[in-house]
Amino acid sequence: MEWLGKRGVAKEQIGQLVMLLQKDYFPELTLEECVTNVEAVLSKREVQNAVLTGIQLDMLAEKGELLPPLQDMIWFDEGLYGCDEVLALSIVNVYGSIGLTNFGYVDKFKPGVLKKLNEKNGKDVHTFLDDIVGAIAASASSRIAHRKQAEREAVQEALNGEAQE
Amino acid sequence: MEWLGKRGVAKEQIGQLVMLLQKDYFPELTLEECVTNVEAVLSKREVQNAVLTGIQLDMLAEKGELLPPLQDMIWFDEGLYGCDEVLALSIVNVYGSIGLTNFGYVDKFKPGVLKKLNEKNGKDVHTFLDDIVGAIAASASSRIAHRKQAEREAVQEALNGEAQE
Amino acid sequence: MEWLGKRGVAKEQIGQLVMLLQKDYFPELTLEECVTNVEAVLSKREVQNAVLTGIQLDMLAEKGELLPPLQDMIWFDEGLYGCDEVLALSIVNVYGSIGLTNFGYVDKFKPGVLKKLNEKNGKDVHTFLDDIVGAIAASASSRIAHRKQAEREAVQEALNGEAQE
Amino acid sequence: MEWLGKRGVAKEQIGQLVMLLQKDYFPELTLEECVTNVEAVLSKREVQNAVLTGIQLDMLAEKGELLPPLQDMIWFDEGLYGCDEVLALSIVNVYGSIGLTNFGYVDKFKPGVLKKLNEKNGKDVHTFLDDIVGAIAASASSRIAHRKQAEREAVQEALNGEAQE
Repeated sequence: MEWLGKRGVAKEQIGQLVMLLQKDYFPELTLEECVTNVEAVLSKREVQNAVLTGIQLDMLAEKGELLPPLQDMIWFDEGLYGCDEVLALSIVNVYGSIGLTNFGYVDKFKPGVLKKLNEKNGKDVHTFLDDIVGAIAASASSRIAHRKQAEREAVQEALNGEAQE
Repeated sequence: MEWLGKRGVAKEQIGQLVMLLQKDYFPELTLEECVTNVEAVLSKREVQNAVLTGIQLDMLAEKGELLPPLQDMIWFDEGLYGCDEVLALSIVNVYGSIGLTNFGYVDKFKPGVLKKLNEKNGKDVHTFLDDIVGAIAASASSRIAHRKQAEREAVQEALNGEAQE
Repeated sequence: MEWLGKRGVAKEQIGQLVMLLQKDYFPELTLEECVTNVEAVLSKREVQNAVLTGIQLDMLAEKGELLPPLQDMIWFDEGLYGCDEVLALSIVNVYGSIGLTNFGYVDKFKPGVLKKLNEKNGKDVHTFLDDIVGAIAASASSRIAHRKQAEREAVQEALNGEAQE
Repeated sequence: MEWLGKRGVAKEQIGQLVMLLQKDYFPELTLEECVTNVEAVLSKREVQNAVLTGIQLDMLAEKGELLPPLQDMIWFDEGLYGCDEVLALSIVNVYGSIGLTNFGYVDKFKPGVLKKLNEKNGKDVHTFLDDIVGAIAASASSRIAHRKQAEREAVQEALNGEAQE
């Protein structure tokens, strides 16, 4: 997504978050594979819409163009403002509920690119973007987990088939 | 909420939606009671944040101030754009999952004030607002259902207590 | 899914719900196409798990093997018990938030097979199943809406491409 | 909830999770306050229903009384089985979306009582319970954050009022 690039987030950086989340479970996982899964998540319209909406709100807050109470809440990334998490959750849900844990984890620890996004410099606003990037990484992780499991089961079934012959 | 008033939605109109949703279950329900429950839902911060965010996006779309792909999706209330439903769902969830059915119902049939909100006149944009108003009505309905049930159980327990004496 | 069949629900019956939900938007839609989309929804593991869990709870309630408070809530399909909607929502979410409205609609009106499932005969328990079937139909509807839109856009792009030459 | 006690989880243990999640933000927070908030979360019917349903499924899996594919998924706490997270999420949602991050965090790190629940001893099954306990702790944390913020704002308004006189 070009919008992500304009906001300073490269696919590779999201791929690294995925790597961090999944390398313990799948040691053979490559960064390239992670990036491919990030691209697959980003190809979903539901995900694209959430990305566009969140980035738009961040940009408007940056320019101070929102109405007072909302402007402050998004500008200061207030803890009780939860619409950013809500939008992010709609991304996570597309690949099923197992992504929730991973989303919560990266959202709490802010590893990699999320640390940078979360630093307040008095200029850039990434209230929505950091949750969105975390959600994309969590979704790509779910996608990998689902696919690897399907592969294992296919292998297992093939072996069972041979054993029966 | 004064923002709702500015966008042409009165508490009484939301109360009428609640009445429509609940009168079959609680025939003695008054419009006043419905409005009180709407006010209780609107006093929740989570709900207020969703209302503010949704109305803000509607207003920006009205003025044509959103970036191209998003501007069109919100302006035309495109069927595949689901962020309005996502935000509305965060309102419904506050009073538990039983509100979902009611939300889906009013969102499909657009009774009362929702019909007006949903009419496209080439000027006003209510893509988020109609889902938000439906969600508030569904939440107030859940709140009523929970409270009425609690009352019944209290009465039942009191009767059981007397019977045991 | 064979479990659905054992509980008296045929794919065709879910396909008919999809038809009902979508025929106004896509007049050329066939029942066969609807059933194909139901099958696609049912091939998702997340969906299968929700189906299995819900049907299992219905079956245990039928045999009276659940612990007291839960047994009564599921047996009587109590209005304030919302775990059935929660599980159903996890199915709807897989195809994005636009399915919510359709789910709420069928859950309120109980058309077709849902009417039968919702009749209490003092023997069968379908507290979870009716929500699950509604959720599968709503998801299949979302899937159709997403695909038809993608087709239209592909055609549009092809036309634009030709026009530019 | 007595069911939690029977499954080896004391309110104080959940309170300690809350303490862990919130002590950085509210240094003056006491364990007693945390437990009070856990009790408030547990008094909600939506939460009680999710607790009952989850514990019931754990208990049935312990006795081997579920049907084959489900029995194995719950017994082994399979990574791709997400109904436990779905049910837990319905608890978290009651106190708004800000609880999501905390839920993901404890679900990943399994601090305190969650570590014990998550140990497989070949006898006890806590597939649902560990997510449910994490969700209750995350919800109580949200409740605290909302209340503390409301207190601060009340103080701020009182000060503003005085300043204006």
